[in-house]
Amino acid sequence: MTVEQKESNIKVPKHDSKDNDLLIKRLKRIEGQIRGIQQMVDDDRYCVDILIQISAAQSALKNVGFQLTERHMKHCVHDAMVKGDGDESVEELMAVLKQFSK
Amino acid sequence: MTVEQKESNIKVPKHDSKDNDLLIKRLKRIEGQIRGIQQMVDDDRYCVDILIQISAAQSALKNVGFQLTERHMKHCVHDAMVKGDGDESVEELMAVLKQFSK
Amino acid sequence: MTVEQKESNIKVPKHDSKDNDLLIKRLKRIEGQIRGIQQMVDDDRYCVDILIQISAAQSALKNVGFQLTERHMKHCVHDAMVKGDGDESVEELMAVLKQFSK
Amino acid sequence: MTVEQKESNIKVPKHDSKDNDLLIKRLKRIEGQIRGIQQMVDDDRYCVDILIQISAAQSALKNVGFQLTERHMKHCVHDAMVKGDGDESVEELMAVLKQFSK
Repeated sequence: MTVEQKESNIKVPKHDSKDNDLLIKRLKRIEGQIRGIQQMVDDDRYCVDILIQISAAQSALKNVGFQLTERHMKHCVHDAMVKGDGDESVEELMAVLKQFSK
Repeated sequence: MTVEQKESNIKVPKHDSKDNDLLIKRLKRIEGQIRGIQQMVDDDRYCVDILIQISAAQSALKNVGFQLTERHMKHCVHDAMVKGDGDESVEELMAVLKQFSK
Repeated sequence: MTVEQKESNIKVPKHDSKDNDLLIKRLKRIEGQIRGIQQMVDDDRYCVDILIQISAAQSALKNVGFQLTERHMKHCVHDAMVKGDGDESVEELMAVLKQFSK
Repeated sequence: MTVEQKESNIKVPKHDSKDNDLLIKRLKRIEGQIRGIQQMVDDDRYCVDILIQISAAQSALKNVGFQLTERHMKHCVHDAMVKGDGDESVEELMAVLKQFSK
């Protein structure tokens, strides 16, 4: 754990803490949506109503993903490109984007 | 609330409670994944590592959606079709599937 | 080919030819979009402009898929359900929907 | 047209023509897939078989999109970042990625 943390301290450019707070706020709202869906299943609510809520949670999660992707490109990928290590950084991001679209 | 519950008692064919338990178990696991992602953001972990976890949570949520869609077709859509109200039921489901694919 | 055709004559409920004509018209438009994209690549046009056209073609193709899925549910799945073979038909459709969402 | 071409001559870094040839080859294959789907509809083939082919064409089209996105990041976005215009370039790409995921 400590080793991993250390490693990430090297790799990770410090992110804006205000930006992190916003992301966490959004993720807490998604956590609440997931709990609401559990309750709907437990209450044996109409499947289509549950599916609509799952779709809303998915959409919110996707938006968090997009926000992180944009931040990653503007900072990590940017820094790698300026240093001349851009290609590896792009390939790493493409692998994640492909997984996302599955 | 009580009125809505009553209405859903009419609309909703009782679902297998074992099936509901499984869905809730999966949703609790997804809730845990979302909390883990919050922690990763708070720890300022590497964006790509966070994106991979978001992608995993999204995939798990999508599978819950598929399980519910299958159950919905086998029960609610099936019952509507046998009763002769199939078209309305299909159109309702299609609207959700289109929203899902966004 | 002839055997397959024969088999499909058994399996397939005759579709409305007007419905088929509309689907073919849409598919011809998509074929034109794909040819337009080839031309853009050949002209070395700006990547983002090409990506926007690919996204439009994908969206059009997805809509054809939705139209076919709706028709399939209203006819083939419906007939299977009324005959009591609904579950198999639903599982077949779910497998395609999962592939679609990848 | 000529004006647009001129403008794109300024904006577009010359792409590797071997890379363009590969993209066009893939797009021609997709064009063939779309034509095959038209034939399947015209032959009134089984909906699920047609849906499987639509899914395959969509997947192929998505892969062309990914290839273009990767090339765009490695060249256009890279050049913009090195010049100090990275943010605008990232935002333009994010807008396309969001449209893609719809």
